[in-house]
Amino acid sequence: MPTLEKERGTTVLRRTAEYQPPHSWRTWLIGRPLRTADAPHQAIGKTIGLAVFASDALSSTAYATDEILFVLAAAGAAAFVYALPISLAIVALLAIVTLSYEQTIHAYPGGGGAYIVARDNLGEFPAQMAGGALLTDYILTVAVSVASGVAQMTSAYPSLFPYRVPLAIGLVLFMMLVNLRGVRESGAVFAVPTYFFLGMLFLTVGSGLTQYLIGGLGAVQNPPHLGKEPFIQSVSLFVVLHAFSNGTTALTGVEAISNGVPAFKEPRSRNAGITLMWMAAILGTLFLVISFLALKVGAMPSEAETVISQLARTTYGGRGLLYLATIAATTLILVMAANTAFADFPRLSALLAADGFLPRQLTYRGSRLVYSRGIVALALIASLLIWLFQASVNALIPLYAIGVFLSFTLSQAGMAHRWWKVGHLPPGQEVRERGSTLRREPRWALKMAINGVGAVCTAVVMLVFAMTKFHDGAWIVILLVPILVAMFSAIHYHYRDLAARLSLEQYGGPPRISRQRVILAISGVHRGTLAALRYARTLSDDITAVHICTDPVEAETLNRKWESWGDGIRLVVLDSPYRLLLEPLLGYIEEIAAQRQPNEIITIIVPQFVPRHWWHNILHTQAAMLLRLMLLFKPGIVIIDVPYQIE
Amino acid sequence: MPTLEKERGTTVLRRTAEYQPPHSWRTWLIGRPLRTADAPHQAIGKTIGLAVFASDALSSTAYATDEILFVLAAAGAAAFVYALPISLAIVALLAIVTLSYEQTIHAYPGGGGAYIVARDNLGEFPAQMAGGALLTDYILTVAVSVASGVAQMTSAYPSLFPYRVPLAIGLVLFMMLVNLRGVRESGAVFAVPTYFFLGMLFLTVGSGLTQYLIGGLGAVQNPPHLGKEPFIQSVSLFVVLHAFSNGTTALTGVEAISNGVPAFKEPRSRNAGITLMWMAAILGTLFLVISFLALKVGAMPSEAETVISQLARTTYGGRGLLYLATIAATTLILVMAANTAFADFPRLSALLAADGFLPRQLTYRGSRLVYSRGIVALALIASLLIWLFQASVNALIPLYAIGVFLSFTLSQAGMAHRWWKVGHLPPGQEVRERGSTLRREPRWALKMAINGVGAVCTAVVMLVFAMTKFHDGAWIVILLVPILVAMFSAIHYHYRDLAARLSLEQYGGPPRISRQRVILAISGVHRGTLAALRYARTLSDDITAVHICTDPVEAETLNRKWESWGDGIRLVVLDSPYRLLLEPLLGYIEEIAAQRQPNEIITIIVPQFVPRHWWHNILHTQAAMLLRLMLLFKPGIVIIDVPYQIE
Repeated sequence: MPTLEKERGTTVLRRTAEYQPPHSWRTWLIGRPLRTADAPHQAIGKTIGLAVFASDALSSTAYATDEILFVLAAAGAAAFVYALPISLAIVALLAIVTLSYEQTIHAYPGGGGAYIVARDNLGEFPAQMAGGALLTDYILTVAVSVASGVAQMTSAYPSLFPYRVPLAIGLVLFMMLVNLRGVRESGAVFAVPTYFFLGMLFLTVGSGLTQYLIGGLGAVQNPPHLGKEPFIQSVSLFVVLHAFSNGTTALTGVEAISNGVPAFKEPRSRNAGITLMWMAAILGTLFLVISFLALKVGAMPSEAETVISQLARTTYGGRGLLYLATIAATTLILVMAANTAFADFPRLSALLAADGFLPRQLTYRGSRLVYSRGIVALALIASLLIWLFQASVNALIPLYAIGVFLSFTLSQAGMAHRWWKVGHLPPGQEVRERGSTLRREPRWALKMAINGVGAVCTAVVMLVFAMTKFHDGAWIVILLVPILVAMFSAIHYHYRDLAARLSLEQYGGPPRISRQRVILAISGVHRGTLAALRYARTLSDDITAVHICTDPVEAETLNRKWESWGDGIRLVVLDSPYRLLLEPLLGYIEEIAAQRQPNEIITIIVPQFVPRHWWHNILHTQAAMLLRLMLLFKPGIVIIDVPYQIE
Repeated sequence: MPTLEKERGTTVLRRTAEYQPPHSWRTWLIGRPLRTADAPHQAIGKTIGLAVFASDALSSTAYATDEILFVLAAAGAAAFVYALPISLAIVALLAIVTLSYEQTIHAYPGGGGAYIVARDNLGEFPAQMAGGALLTDYILTVAVSVASGVAQMTSAYPSLFPYRVPLAIGLVLFMMLVNLRGVRESGAVFAVPTYFFLGMLFLTVGSGLTQYLIGGLGAVQNPPHLGKEPFIQSVSLFVVLHAFSNGTTALTGVEAISNGVPAFKEPRSRNAGITLMWMAAILGTLFLVISFLALKVGAMPSEAETVISQLARTTYGGRGLLYLATIAATTLILVMAANTAFADFPRLSALLAADGFLPRQLTYRGSRLVYSRGIVALALIASLLIWLFQASVNALIPLYAIGVFLSFTLSQAGMAHRWWKVGHLPPGQEVRERGSTLRREPRWALKMAINGVGAVCTAVVMLVFAMTKFHDGAWIVILLVPILVAMFSAIHYHYRDLAARLSLEQYGGPPRISRQRVILAISGVHRGTLAALRYARTLSDDITAVHICTDPVEAETLNRKWESWGDGIRLVVLDSPYRLLLEPLLGYIEEIAAQRQPNEIITIIVPQFVPRHWWHNILHTQAAMLLRLMLLFKPGIVIIDVPYQIE
């Protein structure tokens, strides 16, 4: 027997539900259900954390150098000398962004993505902008990364090309399942490829660097041709800025850890911060060394062969086993990068939902303690994108990264404002704001400067991005973010308005019910009808049975039966000349409702036939179901289903 | 104000519902709704009746001769001499079948298709076989005729070929709309092409015959080659029977009028009978003359060119305007033939439904007084078939015609049995059976012989059909008919069983309700909850509020609010460790139900939030809706929705 615990001597009883979720196909697919109390055990350490949250950022080393060289190539191969300073500038930007986010992680141990930082320091509107931008970008991360991974596969095996869309969508659904199982398991699944990728890449650039230092590094054999004959132009500031902004795709994914702080083991902030620093160090080093070596071996940007591939075959002296392993690892990490979005999208959407900007259902944690609905929503929208763009990376890429840089800018601007507030606090005073505590810190002006410079840099990058890629598809995102913000506001208004209308503040209680009028809808006179009639008698003496008549002969039979079985209750037969059932009944009910007295309530009793097997429903009109749906929208009418089952 | 009419001084009031169906997109699509009282005005005369019910039968002249020649060609062109005797035999068979159906029409003025004749004279099982066979064949009529019509179009305009499936399905849906408007309008639409076809065909064979008589009829110029070199074999009985059975496709559709008697103007039987005779006379004449002329001009059976086409260009001396008009009319009539099935399938399925062999909903007459659900069902199933068989006539044709001949056999056997019964009645005595009256008639033995011979002939044709085309697809129909019969029986059992269980015969009345226990499911304490609580108080004093708790903090707030607003009612908080909402509540209700006393009823009150706009539902969990669905299947539990709308 359940134990009942009487709380504070009141009328409230509390007990634990006996219900045990049964084993089902879901158990087989995503694992056994977890209790809410099991939650803390699902936290992850630094090693797994790096694999789960860093694959997005690290995978960008697979294409960031290419993107810089592509732009510079337009001004001739001589312009490639600018690649190294540009890479250094990007690494500097990476350092700034990393420092900023490291500070954010400590200021927001409960998870401090751009949304929360903007919300706490800049207000609701910038926060919604950051949220909309990030959600858009997470979806694009999944679509772009998976499409790009599949593109690598189809380059190696062209026979797979016609199946690229189902292949990509299949991968997305597989990742959905892995993430529905929960973050630790998905971490274990994803740790192997991430560390495989890191191992292969460090081996490649390490041996390349060694060969360079001892003087044995050759040049790329048969480098690919530049796509088109370059239109030789002077290297303008615009070209340099464009190359710089293109290269900053290397930074996409850096924000992932700050959103994911709550997933880390305690001490959360410290673990997350260290993971972030490691990630930035690895990313910066790899990116820089790849750019350096690419120039030294004379790699050419090309759609036909990536820089990584040119570098690997030069270093390893051909397309041997190590070369193939490097390419396989790169392919894999691109697909895995999508997993970062699967870790962060559901978390961010739950945050937005908890603040009332998205449907509340997104805060619901499924049987494995993950935000299952967010995971499923992400998988579905990303699959739709992949289908719409036919898994073409070229078509998707111009939409990508604007959102990330908008969120970088907002987040860093928010942090800068925070330091300003901190700097103007009297010494010793503390101010609590939402989740974080503000307290005067010594070098606030320097920190503010770092964040401020970061905000300006990322804002410039974003603007260059938006301008150079506007016609290619960037306009979609530029249009989408305000639409999302408007949607957030509308949802927020709905919830706030509803809460106010349901609030018990200054509420005198519901109106007294002085009279109850019962209408019993009947389609015939049989045992089910009589059970409903018996129930109606327990409610009121004012009962009217109503029958809609489409067949006069049938109505005659019904009248006769009612004489014997109707218990003296009034029966109204409504002739329906157009053979409609619901509309005349609704009309009658409206007529009655219009004559209602104050404090009178109208109750409609609908005898509902319940067959032994649900598929028997196909043999019966679902009039009772439809009637209920239509009545729900009429105020002050209570609907009673009296089911009659056949035993 | 509505007038209330007190009937027979009892408690029954009768009035006409005020409801007027609004003008909507449906009015635009299928016309304004018709009152039940308008029904008789929708009847049709002989001229329109011929167009509506005969297009199926008449259209078979477009391919019946080809089908005979195809089989004979296997024994060499010399075998063509058998075509004329075979055609004569088919016309004789047509005469027998027509006479039989003419007698049926008079015996069954309420509509006497094979189903009714078999039901009244042979019993339930043969009737179900006839019904299943006919329904299958009506569906195939639509699929084959439309696919064949589209094939003619795509032969003329090969660029349409890739669109043949959407084209065919589009035609089916167009025909669905025309038939949803009602039979008279669809008759008007279809009369023009039917009479255009008849005109063109009589012109063709008339001028051909004239040329033959005055000696000017030439031979086909450049006749098409026979598909394959014939394997010269002696003309066996099997080949002749096969050619005969192939040619009897000319008879498909002859039964249509006997099903459609109630659609005719009064005197129904006479009008329908005359129309049938006209149809048979036209069909027989055309078929015979076409076969005769085909032999005279030396037409060859071929997939590349039909016999009609060869005949027309020989008669008209080339591919001129008259030739094109003949081909266009033939194409059109093939498409229109599908309309016969649209007239008969809904009527037959309504008949089966009224007898409880198909879902009752099929007896429902829509806003235009036609059996709209049958029309829609036919269109959907035929479209599915067209899609599955990719609109290929060759793939569909082996399934076709077996059903028709099965129904012919059953219908004529039934009639033969009827004459036997009639013949054995004492003179002057009358016996009423279902819809028809049996009375001794003078030449019953001759009539029985005619029907008996017809039954044997059609049975033989059916068997030859089934054997020669078994592997090509006939097995599908041979399998399908028993499956349909089994389905009819299962549905029939369900309705009969249900009627017995709901019957008031020897019923003592519903059990007394002595105690009412109320469970109020709440998700929070707000104005909506309190309205539901107030309602609960009018029902019983035994009320328990239940809250499923997934968040302890929230539960704490709820407890506090309940203390102030709960009116002293007991609140049970159920902790749900797996964050499920419905299952723990269902478990609790089951626990309560298990302790139920006799004559105690359990009522579950579900406060149901109703947003101002239906699309706001996306912002709310549909827990109340789901709970109701799950509770419906538990016996003895009444469900009350107390809606709280936001005004």
